[in-house]
Amino acid sequence: MIYLDNSATTRPHREVLETYINVSERFFGNASSLHRLGIESEKVLNRSRAILAELLEVESSTVLFTSGGTESNNVAIKGSLLHSHQKGNHLITTKAEHASVYQVFKELESEGYHVSFLPVDQDGLVSVEQLEQAITKETTLVSISHVNNETGTIQPIYEIGQLLHRYPKIRFHVDHVQGAGKVPLSIKQSHIDLLTMSAHKFHGLKGTALLYVRPGLHLTPLFHGGEQEFGFRGGTENVAGAAAMAKAYKIHLEKAPSAMPGMKKRREQLIHHINRSEGITLNSHPTNGALHIINLSVPGYKPEVIVQKLAEKEMYVSTQSACSSKLNEPSRVLLAMGKEEELAASAIRISLSFESSDEEVYSFLCALDQLLPSIRKVVKK
Amino acid sequence: MIYLDNSATTRPHREVLETYINVSERFFGNASSLHRLGIESEKVLNRSRAILAELLEVESSTVLFTSGGTESNNVAIKGSLLHSHQKGNHLITTKAEHASVYQVFKELESEGYHVSFLPVDQDGLVSVEQLEQAITKETTLVSISHVNNETGTIQPIYEIGQLLHRYPKIRFHVDHVQGAGKVPLSIKQSHIDLLTMSAHKFHGLKGTALLYVRPGLHLTPLFHGGEQEFGFRGGTENVAGAAAMAKAYKIHLEKAPSAMPGMKKRREQLIHHINRSEGITLNSHPTNGALHIINLSVPGYKPEVIVQKLAEKEMYVSTQSACSSKLNEPSRVLLAMGKEEELAASAIRISLSFESSDEEVYSFLCALDQLLPSIRKVVKK
Ligand SMILES: Cc1ncc(COP(=O)(O)O)c(C=O)c1O
Ligand SMILES: Cc1ncc(COP(=O)(O)O)c(C=O)c1O
Repeated sequence: MIYLDNSATTRPHREVLETYINVSERFFGNASSLHRLGIESEKVLNRSRAILAELLEVESSTVLFTSGGTESNNVAIKGSLLHSHQKGNHLITTKAEHASVYQVFKELESEGYHVSFLPVDQDGLVSVEQLEQAITKETTLVSISHVNNETGTIQPIYEIGQLLHRYPKIRFHVDHVQGAGKVPLSIKQSHIDLLTMSAHKFHGLKGTALLYVRPGLHLTPLFHGGEQEFGFRGGTENVAGAAAMAKAYKIHLEKAPSAMPGMKKRREQLIHHINRSEGITLNSHPTNGALHIINLSVPGYKPEVIVQKLAEKEMYVSTQSACSSKLNEPSRVLLAMGKEEELAASAIRISLSFESSDEEVYSFLCALDQLLPSIRKVVKK
Repeated sequence: MIYLDNSATTRPHREVLETYINVSERFFGNASSLHRLGIESEKVLNRSRAILAELLEVESSTVLFTSGGTESNNVAIKGSLLHSHQKGNHLITTKAEHASVYQVFKELESEGYHVSFLPVDQDGLVSVEQLEQAITKETTLVSISHVNNETGTIQPIYEIGQLLHRYPKIRFHVDHVQGAGKVPLSIKQSHIDLLTMSAHKFHGLKGTALLYVRPGLHLTPLFHGGEQEFGFRGGTENVAGAAAMAKAYKIHLEKAPSAMPGMKKRREQLIHHINRSEGITLNSHPTNGALHIINLSVPGYKPEVIVQKLAEKEMYVSTQSACSSKLNEPSRVLLAMGKEEELAASAIRISLSFESSDEEVYSFLCALDQLLPSIRKVVKK
C-alpha cells in the first residue's frame, strides 16, 4: 500500500498503540477517584500533559486534553465568545480555514456575531495589513490556521502574533493541526493565546487532541459537568488517549530532524514531475509551504475517479479535506485563492508523512502517469 | 486487587482492547475519505453503529458516537435548547442528577432559562405527579437519569415516558450511563427522545460513548465542522473507539443473564452485613434500586480516610461520584434525599461489576470491619 493521504489521517505507530494498551490495562482507574488507583491514573495523565507541555515549551497547566481538533477549535472559539460578548462582537478569520473553524464562524454569524472572513492571495496567504485594517474596537478574537490542510500554505503566524500583541483585548487562536511537528512554531514568541493540535495527524490515535490555553485565559466550557481539565472540560479523562498522544508527539519530534530533508526531496520530486506533466496544474506554492502537502488539479477529470482508480492500485490520496470530500463541491480554499471553478473542482491532495519513501513517491507518479490517459478515455466515451 | 468502584469506571475487557487495536491498525483510514481505505473504515463505523442499534432495539441512524457521557448529556440538553428556544424556555430536571446534567442546567439557569429542579423522596425517587405539575406551556425538555450514580435509585422512566408522550412538544432525555446493560430499559416503549450511554462503565474504553437521537429530532451540534455523524457532530470519526464500544456492550449484554443472579446475591450479602454493622447506615434502598450500587454512610468518619485505608489493602471503593469526589463537600444527592449533613458527608459507594466475585465482597467486608476501629482511633488522637 502507498498511503499519501496523511493530512486526512495517519496510521498509528505501534509504540503509540502499545502505550495506549499498557495504560488502559494498568491505569484503568478514574483519574478523579481519590484512591490510589485513581491517583496513579491522574499521575499518568499529568505526566502526559507535562511531556506535551515541555515539547511545546509551555507550562503544563496550559494543556487541555480534548476529543479532537474539531472540539479544540470549537471550544477555543465559542468558549472565548461566550465570555467576551460584552466586550465586543466582532471576530476575524479567513476564507481558507478548515471546516471546524469556518463552520463555527458561519454559525456565529447566523447568531448575530459580526465576522470578517479575510481574503487570501493566489498562494493562499492572508495579508497582515488587511488583518490590521479589519480590526475594530469591537474585535475580540482572531482565528487563523498555521498550515492550510488542502494546500500546505503557511500563514505568517509570527507576524500576526506581533501585531495582535499590541491589541491585548483580542485573543489569538491558531489551528496548528496540520503544522504540528512539521512546520516550526513558537507559541510564546508568536503570542498565541489558544492553539489546537490533533494526534491522529502525527501517527497518534483518533479522538485524542489538545488545546493550549494561555495562562490566565478564561474559557466557557463546551462540556459542563465535573471539574476535570482545570474546570474547562467535564468528563472522565481518557488517560490512555492522553498518554498515547504524548508518545506520538514525542516520536514525531524525534523523527523530524532526520525525516525533514527526505520529505523536502520528495516534495521537490513531486513538484518537478507535476510541472513537467501536461494537463496537471500545481496549486500549492512550488517552494514555500509545508513540505508534506502538495495540491494539484487535473482539469477535465473527476478527481473522485482518479482517487478511486489509484485506490484500486492500493495508492491513497484525496480530493480535498476528508470531511468535505463527500460534499462534492469545488474546493472553497482553492476558490478563495482565485482559482477557476474547473481547477477548484478537480483538485487532488497528496500528503506525505515522515514514513513516506522515495520509492513510494516514484511508484505513485508512475501510476498517475499511466492512469490519466485511461481515465480520459473513460470520460470521453 | 478488589475493585469495587465500577460506577466510577471499569477495567476494559481484553477483547475490547483487542478490537480497538485491530481496528486502529487495519482500518486506520479516515472514515470520510473517498478511497477504499476510507470506505472500509466507514463500514466498520457503521457496522459498530448497527450492532449498538440492534442491541438497543432502535434504528441504526439514531446512534451518534461521542467522546463521553458528559458530551452526550451536554449536546442532548444544549443542542435541544438552542433549537427550541423560540418555543419556550422552561426545562425540568431533578436535584439528584449527575454533574454532567446538573451543571448544564445550572449554567442554563444563569443564562436566563427557567429550570425546575424536581425534589426526590427519601429513596431518591422523583414523583411522576410532581413532574406533571411542574409542566408549563413553556416546557421544552425533561432530563432525568435512569439510575442514580451514587445510590443506584431507579427512576420510573417508563411512567415518565408515558406521561410525556401526551406532551409532544417536550423532549425527554434520559442519562442511561449507570443503567446500561444492568437495568432493563426500552427506549421505544418509554418514548425516550434522547439517551446517553458511556462505554467505560461497562468495560469499554474511556472517551467513547453514544447518544441516541429519536428519528426526526433536530439537535444543534456542539462541534461545528464536517458533516460527520449525520451532521450532528463534526470531527474525524474515532472508528476504533466505536468498534470497541460495540464490542463492550455486546459482551456486557451477553454476560448479563448469567451474571445478574450473582450480583443480586452479592448485593444482598453487602446489605445484610451493613444492616448488622453498628455505626453504618445504608443509604441505598434495601431491596429496590440497581443491583450494582450500594451507598452507605459511616458517620463520624472521614470517608476519604476509609477509601485510602482500603486502597492500602488494594481494595477500591469511592466516596461519591468520581468527578465530585475532590470537591470535599457533602453529597448533593444524599442531601436531596433528605439525609442529614453528617450522613451526606460520610458516604461510601460500593459498585459491583459482572466480574465481581463472592470472595471479593466477603474479603472487602472483613477488611471494612477490621478497619473502622483502627481509623476511629486515628481520628480521636
Ligand atoms: C487544519 C485542520 N483543523 C482541524 C482538523 C480537525 O481535526 P479532527 O479531525 O481531529 O477533529 C483537521 C483535520 O481533520 C485539520 O486538517
Ligand atoms: C450517571 C452518569 N452520567 C454521566 C456520566 C459521565 O460520563 P463520562 O464519564 O463518560 O463523561 C457518569 C460518569 O461519569 C455518570 O455516572
